[in-house]
Amino acid sequence: MSRETRDAIFGGEALARIARLARIDTEVLVTDFVAPDPVLGRMLAETEVLVTGWGCPRIDRAALSRMPRLRAVVHSAGSVKHHITDACWERGVQVSTAAAANALPVAEYTVAAILFANKRVLDGAYAYRQSRQRVNLLERFPSVGNYRRTVGLVGASRIGRRVVELLRPFDVRVLVHDPYLSEREARELGVEQAGLDALVSRSDVVSLHAPELPATRRMFDAARLSLMPDGATLINTARGSLVDTEALTKEVRTGRLHAVLDHTEPEVLPADSPLFDLPNVLLTPHLAGSIGGELHRLADATADELGRYAQGLTFRHRVDPQALQHSA
Amino acid sequence: MSRETRDAIFGGEALARIARLARIDTEVLVTDFVAPDPVLGRMLAETEVLVTGWGCPRIDRAALSRMPRLRAVVHSAGSVKHHITDACWERGVQVSTAAAANALPVAEYTVAAILFANKRVLDGAYAYRQSRQRVNLLERFPSVGNYRRTVGLVGASRIGRRVVELLRPFDVRVLVHDPYLSEREARELGVEQAGLDALVSRSDVVSLHAPELPATRRMFDAARLSLMPDGATLINTARGSLVDTEALTKEVRTGRLHAVLDHTEPEVLPADSPLFDLPNVLLTPHLAGSIGGELHRLADATADELGRYAQGLTFRHRVDPQALQHSA
Ligand SMILES: NC(=O)c1ccc[n+]([C@@H]2O[C@H](COP(=O)([O-])OP(=O)(O)OC[C@H]3O[C@@H](n4cnc5c(N)ncnc54)[C@H](O)[C@@H]3O)[C@@H](O)[C@H]2O)c1
Ligand SMILES: NC(=O)c1ccc[n+]([C@@H]2O[C@H](COP(=O)([O-])OP(=O)(O)OC[C@H]3O[C@@H](n4cnc5c(N)ncnc54)[C@H](O)[C@@H]3O)[C@@H](O)[C@H]2O)c1
Repeated sequence: MSRETRDAIFGGEALARIARLARIDTEVLVTDFVAPDPVLGRMLAETEVLVTGWGCPRIDRAALSRMPRLRAVVHSAGSVKHHITDACWERGVQVSTAAAANALPVAEYTVAAILFANKRVLDGAYAYRQSRQRVNLLERFPSVGNYRRTVGLVGASRIGRRVVELLRPFDVRVLVHDPYLSEREARELGVEQAGLDALVSRSDVVSLHAPELPATRRMFDAARLSLMPDGATLINTARGSLVDTEALTKEVRTGRLHAVLDHTEPEVLPADSPLFDLPNVLLTPHLAGSIGGELHRLADATADELGRYAQGLTFRHRVDPQALQHSA
Repeated sequence: MSRETRDAIFGGEALARIARLARIDTEVLVTDFVAPDPVLGRMLAETEVLVTGWGCPRIDRAALSRMPRLRAVVHSAGSVKHHITDACWERGVQVSTAAAANALPVAEYTVAAILFANKRVLDGAYAYRQSRQRVNLLERFPSVGNYRRTVGLVGASRIGRRVVELLRPFDVRVLVHDPYLSEREARELGVEQAGLDALVSRSDVVSLHAPELPATRRMFDAARLSLMPDGATLINTARGSLVDTEALTKEVRTGRLHAVLDHTEPEVLPADSPLFDLPNVLLTPHLAGSIGGELHRLADATADELGRYAQGLTFRHRVDPQALQHSA
């Protein structure tokens, strides 16, 4: 992983815990598999488990040839798609991910965003800031609130499932669309399944939790956005590519829709994008995932998985190469 | 209650439910006990249960003298302090309140505000809007997030207890200060009790849920605010009088503290108050309580209580005149 990642994620107490579980030189950091210095080369030759993180180079055939004893990769962040290659699966390397730990802050952001959106909290703040007078809530916000609202989740993902759990105490109905969710799983989750268009047209808030895939590209184009009821909110903490930015900009510009966006395409919007300034849009700079102290949770999750490995247990968050095809 | 209140709260289906439970003329609304027209006077003389709401005039001795058969008051909003008088208690009138139903949206607002505050979501949005460039989160928000944070609640009130419940799935420690909370109750709630100063100095977020009382007036003055750690957030959804507005303004102006304020003193701030424009302050116009569709929950709760009365059961949310002295 990159040095910045190491310092941020493993700056807490987890590294000491890892040092008690494994033979590790906690001073050493590999940022390059192809041309490591001789000392690193010898260490890689002995390595049984790699702890990886953001900025990890691809573990391809060449990298693997330097790690003949490699049996497992424990990734301290979410997606492993950037560094785990087919060569790893062919070699039978076991891979674990901290995506479940990384899902928690995204789900927390999402739930807070849903509660605020249904209640028009930021719109209320804006109205008050503009007028500097008592805001007539009955007149201005006649049918808002978190009572008997419908929330539609696109993707019964790690994040999506956590959102389902966190929404249980509230008076909201939850619809889910996920082509890979079985009827039985939906029943167990306690959610109602819906086709994408049905979900979109019935939901007060739609929240995206599907991965970036050819099938999800611009899933929310002008036609689909037009199915959202007036006043509905689109939350995107997934990937910018799922939404047609221009079409969404049109819909929020007229005030018909609201949006909460942690991801957009392009990732950094042009400076003149109206999305920066519209009061019905909350635009955040890709912060829903683990940041600050939340990074220590990733380190703790990594130490947990290493602990399981040390005890001869299977990983709790083992990555399945088949499922990875429709996962983040 | 006022006509506006009646239309907003009882505009849904609850009134029809009430009409099935009781003999009621759903067209009739009493806004004045003292000089009602003769028809209303005759109706009051027969009234056994009053359904009250915001804007209800005081039910004093004079009002009671017109309602010789009155046995119960079912209030469709929170505090009954504005209209229930000692004369009601002396007459043995039973009083029920929808304060528990009204607590839910306030608790929801509070939990969303806590999650956003710990993670600096609105600060991140502001930084991005200002710079229109990638925000370096590691540099700018090095120690934020909802992992192993401490939340201090002032008042184990209906709202405060609901916040405790809603915070259970998160990795936060909850401290509570309430002079009327017994050790046993705190254990049952699963919270740690703390003196007010200890709570304030240990919490990343302090949220106020105590009522307006002589003992709580300016509880958060300059001295107490100075105990809050750098970067901590004060949330006030209770009453403006609990906080010294000027002292808080000083603390948020320097950027040392953050604040989320649904109530201030005065209730509408002067137009030049810095609280309107500071990026580390979220100022909302008294909307945390029931608004919009949430008002129907109050009507539903009112119908539930009338249902209990009709079945000869005691009220579920009966107001205890003793406890009222230190309640909202
Ligand atoms: N904002 C952030 O900081 C942040 C952090 C982590 C993850 N993410 C993003 O959040 C999203 C969810 O991540 P995760 O780890 O919870 O995902 P996951 O891998 O656990 O699950 C993905 C889910 O999407 C479903 N899916 C696949 N194709 C779909 C389709 N066409 N329509 C609907 N559902 C489909 C899959 O069946 C699976 O259930 C991803 O886009 C990921 O990149 C963002
Ligand atoms: N923002 C809104 O729209 C909104 C809506 C409803 C209620 N409120 C306010 O929220 C607050 C809580 O309301 P509630 O109905 O949950 O209250 P409640 O009546 O259920 O409970 C009040 C609690 O405060 C405690 N208390 C009394 N004195 C205290 C002190 N000095 N320090 C700490 N705790 C003390 C009491 O023991 C009691 O547990 C009140 O101020 C109320 O006015 C605001």
